[in-house]
Amino acid sequence: MSARPRIDLNADLGESFGGSRMEDDAAMLNQVTSANIACGFHAGDPVTLRAATTAAAASGVVVGAHVAYHDLVGFGRRFLDASEAELSADVLYQLSALEGIAQVCGTQVSYVKPHGALYHACATYDPHARAVAEAVAAFSASVSRQVPLMLQSSEDEQRQAGHRRAAEAGIPTVWEVFADRRYHPDGILVSRRDPAGVITDVAEAVEAAQRFVEEGVVLTTDGSRLPLQAQSICLHADTADALAMAAAVRQALERAGADIRSFA
Amino acid sequence: MSARPRIDLNADLGESFGGSRMEDDAAMLNQVTSANIACGFHAGDPVTLRAATTAAAASGVVVGAHVAYHDLVGFGRRFLDASEAELSADVLYQLSALEGIAQVCGTQVSYVKPHGALYHACATYDPHARAVAEAVAAFSASVSRQVPLMLQSSEDEQRQAGHRRAAEAGIPTVWEVFADRRYHPDGILVSRRDPAGVITDVAEAVEAAQRFVEEGVVLTTDGSRLPLQAQSICLHADTADALAMAAAVRQALERAGADIRSFA
Amino acid sequence: MSARPRIDLNADLGESFGGSRMEDDAAMLNQVTSANIACGFHAGDPVTLRAATTAAAASGVVVGAHVAYHDLVGFGRRFLDASEAELSADVLYQLSALEGIAQVCGTQVSYVKPHGALYHACATYDPHARAVAEAVAAFSASVSRQVPLMLQSSEDEQRQAGHRRAAEAGIPTVWEVFADRRYHPDGILVSRRDPAGVITDVAEAVEAAQRFVEEGVVLTTDGSRLPLQAQSICLHADTADALAMAAAVRQALERAGADIRSFA
Amino acid sequence: MSARPRIDLNADLGESFGGSRMEDDAAMLNQVTSANIACGFHAGDPVTLRAATTAAAASGVVVGAHVAYHDLVGFGRRFLDASEAELSADVLYQLSALEGIAQVCGTQVSYVKPHGALYHACATYDPHARAVAEAVAAFSASVSRQVPLMLQSSEDEQRQAGHRRAAEAGIPTVWEVFADRRYHPDGILVSRRDPAGVITDVAEAVEAAQRFVEEGVVLTTDGSRLPLQAQSICLHADTADALAMAAAVRQALERAGADIRSFA
Repeated sequence: MSARPRIDLNADLGESFGGSRMEDDAAMLNQVTSANIACGFHAGDPVTLRAATTAAAASGVVVGAHVAYHDLVGFGRRFLDASEAELSADVLYQLSALEGIAQVCGTQVSYVKPHGALYHACATYDPHARAVAEAVAAFSASVSRQVPLMLQSSEDEQRQAGHRRAAEAGIPTVWEVFADRRYHPDGILVSRRDPAGVITDVAEAVEAAQRFVEEGVVLTTDGSRLPLQAQSICLHADTADALAMAAAVRQALERAGADIRSFA
Repeated sequence: MSARPRIDLNADLGESFGGSRMEDDAAMLNQVTSANIACGFHAGDPVTLRAATTAAAASGVVVGAHVAYHDLVGFGRRFLDASEAELSADVLYQLSALEGIAQVCGTQVSYVKPHGALYHACATYDPHARAVAEAVAAFSASVSRQVPLMLQSSEDEQRQAGHRRAAEAGIPTVWEVFADRRYHPDGILVSRRDPAGVITDVAEAVEAAQRFVEEGVVLTTDGSRLPLQAQSICLHADTADALAMAAAVRQALERAGADIRSFA
Repeated sequence: MSARPRIDLNADLGESFGGSRMEDDAAMLNQVTSANIACGFHAGDPVTLRAATTAAAASGVVVGAHVAYHDLVGFGRRFLDASEAELSADVLYQLSALEGIAQVCGTQVSYVKPHGALYHACATYDPHARAVAEAVAAFSASVSRQVPLMLQSSEDEQRQAGHRRAAEAGIPTVWEVFADRRYHPDGILVSRRDPAGVITDVAEAVEAAQRFVEEGVVLTTDGSRLPLQAQSICLHADTADALAMAAAVRQALERAGADIRSFA
Repeated sequence: MSARPRIDLNADLGESFGGSRMEDDAAMLNQVTSANIACGFHAGDPVTLRAATTAAAASGVVVGAHVAYHDLVGFGRRFLDASEAELSADVLYQLSALEGIAQVCGTQVSYVKPHGALYHACATYDPHARAVAEAVAAFSASVSRQVPLMLQSSEDEQRQAGHRRAAEAGIPTVWEVFADRRYHPDGILVSRRDPAGVITDVAEAVEAAQRFVEEGVVLTTDGSRLPLQAQSICLHADTADALAMAAAVRQALERAGADIRSFA
């Protein structure tokens, strides 16, 4: 008799900054089990970090540090050629800031997820993957607990720089897939700049999530099925129907008998 | 028989940002016992924070979080009318970022010193004094240790907002005087914008430090002697002869038999 | 036979920054005759400035520079104690940046409107009113055209610092009232932090606009009618039903026979 | 009888930001004929821009816009993968801000020089070279004067992206060489991270400047002589003996009969 498939649902929260109040964090916290909280470098001012972390703690949702290149105006979506020393210090600064706030809120940083361009760099660009891993390893050692790095699942060795560097640094990784993004046949995400990059149809996202949980595959743009390993499914919080989609995905997975629970 | 007078010497370090490399941190660490490290809001990028904290730890110098209004372009020297919730979160963010870095460097944040305009606001403006105290109290509780707030010594009740708010929040304060700043007769510092505000003559600063340690007074602009209580003397690191002055002050105090040691 | 009352309708545009895309600029441009375009200090990245200015030019809407304190994280809503020299240079920088972009888009900066906390400071705080006026006067002289300053209409001499300083600097002012904000009996706006500060009911805003255009008064919180002079009515673009409200106000004023046209 | 060789001397000015006051702008203005003034994206706050531009105008030194990636913390020294639309708007914003300030100071922006990583990208990366050229061309058209782009001189077609894109956009270019940087045999600059990258010996820099003006060559790291065409020599203002070096170079060139004059 097979065990219930276990899966984590994560989403980006705390992305308000300045004049913008971006997403309905509170409602999203009812749907996800892990919250990637912006740490101030691509979005997220301190009052937002504190509010988002307080809300996550109150909802029993696990908190992750959503670390990024220092690029507020670009929302962290642009590669920035930082040195390893700079990037490592940037990541350590961000995750430390969130950890302190989380401790005050009665919770802690349970994982680190690179955001935007840094997320993609961690797949393929060794110096930046190493810098992130170094920071997370140093932080883990200082807090005496293992803080995993959340990275994009890939079967392609060319896209596993982050996994290798994490292993070298002695830190675990959590792999994730996307319910609301489309995949090229080689497992690369279709770019957000391409209108086809983001799935906006709720039914299609629900199907993608269910397919992954039940069969361990994602559907690619040529209709092929790509097997991927992952402990978490990412749901975006900044799309038009983000909340409806998250709720629908969660309901469908629950009905299908999945054990929706943080990996932490 | 009187005990040796005990005194701490503190200076601002880690103030580099972007294109500027501001002060000779390493040399200054040989002179002071406490380092107020910029946390990124008025100065101090993460790579600088990490380097300054590493150097302080290596020198056995106690690390303090030099927290400020979010105003890089103004170097934190301009009052900013943040709400209490914003300011409290800003302070918590800054001190958490430095704490995480300090832990990685094998040390910790041992005190919090407001910088620039926030330092002055903490003397007289209750809402901001309360916001700072709230953040430090919340942080102290979460790390299970008392983190004192370093504030300007004043006998004037009108200038003790920070002391009162710290007491209310249950956090200790450390009082400081300045060896290289001039005092008005009422104990207010002569403004930096006034050329007379900063003492640049080494002998005069040495005398001021010695006078304070031996007699517990500072000399004011009208020649009167103002009694003040303090556990620390602040030395600036950004003046032309900062290093020579710090060394001269330290030597003079040592010769005079002072016990130069952190308050922490 | 009385002439048709002439009135300008203005709204804030171009306030996107980083991850946020804040308002539906294009649609709003069909309703207003003047666009206060954010210049990068409280919101508005360059690509947004250029897009907003291009759209305004295409719609025949007059462009104004919405200048602010340098406080992105606070959206320019917090007083910042800049020196006159700093603030004057900040204003000149912002309005110059927008002017250059406007010229490339085939239009020009036709007025300057201080934003947020700077708007309020210009009513009562002489040094900042003077700094803004100095910058606008210097700019006007260099481009050889009169660039007016848009300020809040007030009969209260205590709240006319900006008007006086503009007159001293030789620059004209344009006065504005708000259709979607509530007034205290003394003509001060009810704070945005107060839920009663912003009018969200479309019918009420329409009535306020019509009352002002036809009778030259605004209704205050105690039911009294306050006579005010103004050449422009401000409509907010960042409220939930901003667009519907703007359209309703415009339609009502058109039906009432107003000549809706820029003051420029 | 040969004409006196004509040469422009340029240096970076106005790079102060926040707490840092970086270089002795006033003194440097006695030595150079063109000032590359930082526009706020890698350094240079508005009060500094205005002061530097005022000083340049008073000294009769030609003003150039030193435009950069939006990266204050990295001082514009790190490649940032901005889109063409973003970069073009960024450049237009910066040069417009400086133009407005320059007009108020009685001068104008006479050329545009990309700074740091953007300078290097303009040599080899077509999309960014095109974005810069587009912005300068649009600006030139709107002010009805030709504003040249200052770029690194290179005989290598692989490093002439900026020159080609400028030509396509119909804008002239000015080529420059460095008196205080070392060249690889292929004409690429030795990196600043390499201690050998920057020439700190005054005599060596003087010799390099003289060699270039008299013989039209630079010496490379293998001792070979590389012929280059250029109308300007760059002198750094941020090295220890910047001022002494600039003065020595200027004196030597004057003695050698050069006509030291802006290309503008």
